[in-house]
Amino acid sequence: MNIALEISYLGKNYSGYQVQPNKVTVQGVLENALEKAFGKKIATTASGRTDAGVSALCQVVNFNIETSIPAERIMYVINENLPNDIRVMRSFEVGEDFNARYSAKRKTYEYNFYCSNVENAIYSEHALFVKGELDIESMKMACKLLVGEHDFTSFCASDTEVVNKVRTIYSADIIKTPFGYKFVVCGNGFLYNMVRIIMGTLLEIGYKKLKYNDILTILEQKNRAKAGPTVSSVGLMLVNVEY
Amino acid sequence: MNIALEISYLGKNYSGYQVQPNKVTVQGVLENALEKAFGKKIATTASGRTDAGVSALCQVVNFNIETSIPAERIMYVINENLPNDIRVMRSFEVGEDFNARYSAKRKTYEYNFYCSNVENAIYSEHALFVKGELDIESMKMACKLLVGEHDFTSFCASDTEVVNKVRTIYSADIIKTPFGYKFVVCGNGFLYNMVRIIMGTLLEIGYKKLKYNDILTILEQKNRAKAGPTVSSVGLMLVNVEY
Repeated sequence: MNIALEISYLGKNYSGYQVQPNKVTVQGVLENALEKAFGKKIATTASGRTDAGVSALCQVVNFNIETSIPAERIMYVINENLPNDIRVMRSFEVGEDFNARYSAKRKTYEYNFYCSNVENAIYSEHALFVKGELDIESMKMACKLLVGEHDFTSFCASDTEVVNKVRTIYSADIIKTPFGYKFVVCGNGFLYNMVRIIMGTLLEIGYKKLKYNDILTILEQKNRAKAGPTVSSVGLMLVNVEY
Repeated sequence: MNIALEISYLGKNYSGYQVQPNKVTVQGVLENALEKAFGKKIATTASGRTDAGVSALCQVVNFNIETSIPAERIMYVINENLPNDIRVMRSFEVGEDFNARYSAKRKTYEYNFYCSNVENAIYSEHALFVKGELDIESMKMACKLLVGEHDFTSFCASDTEVVNKVRTIYSADIIKTPFGYKFVVCGNGFLYNMVRIIMGTLLEIGYKKLKYNDILTILEQKNRAKAGPTVSSVGLMLVNVEY
């Protein structure tokens, strides 16, 4: 049976999603739980890795298993073997050719931030503290320019092995939250650090160091050095993966 | 100078607000920071203690100090000596007779919860996971009955030394949040575990184990055993103190 899981996790306790030697990662802890649940090592595939500190409201993972446990009940067996900061929310059978990574059509990320003159311990746990005020309207206008198919070389960490840096953004906007804002972006895929570099660039627009349409020039330049800084992972969350 | 501070903190890393031997408490860490900042031990008074695990969006503290640092700048000196999960958001001079505890007129707490069939690691960090569905309308009606002056003996942990258990509730309601609900209650003071026991009772009403107006009968009975359970501290936050 090919089983898909929808999982949520708190990124701050983990060195990212993907297994790494001598580090506690979400995938490592999940695969340990699967081994405990099924008595053997099971390889998993996720929709994509998330960086150290990045949380997921809903990440999708799949793996193959022969078991008499009904697909919908598998989540309970796994949750019993997981810490509270990783929760399986749903388990279900998928077609043989379903691959959480390659079958993914759209992913949505959000980046939370708040503007204030002083930091608040509660808000800063899951949102970037931005000192002072931002021109949110200009940031929203820049978001609109990101929509469509673009080469995101300028918005990708330079130490990546990915060759094709063309991605399609279906929607991007800045939305008010109870105590701040979130940048919500949906696309067919995201490059290494892409959301955090876009966010860093949007903040430069918000601070009026850049004009909103400078984001188009930066896209055209295909040069990481032209975009804003990579902001902290604290505000970043994988919200949804669509297939 | 009598200085008041507005501070925020993440409760989960602390054994409550108040200093206790061999435990890490918010007050203990704050007074250490004051000692580092001013080179001597300084006693502080807070609006009230919060239990282990309870966070504060805005707690108020005062202390006396002779210093040449302007009152408004004191926050920066203290923050330099505090961990990130405790932040001073404001410092200001108050009258000689201001006492953060005895001068407090109104306090507002909120308790976050979400209803679902499955737990989500992100939501569960700061909100109580409630399995299944709740009758929110009945819970809201029960909230209305709490408003006014009542003897809250039924809603106070039995191991308390407080004699007078009469408190006035100015407002109480269940409010929708992005992923669940919050019980928001404002009163002239709260007894030990009072918000958590009220919340536990409201949940019994939400589960239809109790009718909404049973809350009045429970108040009249003045018996802790008649109210619902003390729910986890995970969803509780001190939001505001008014003077």
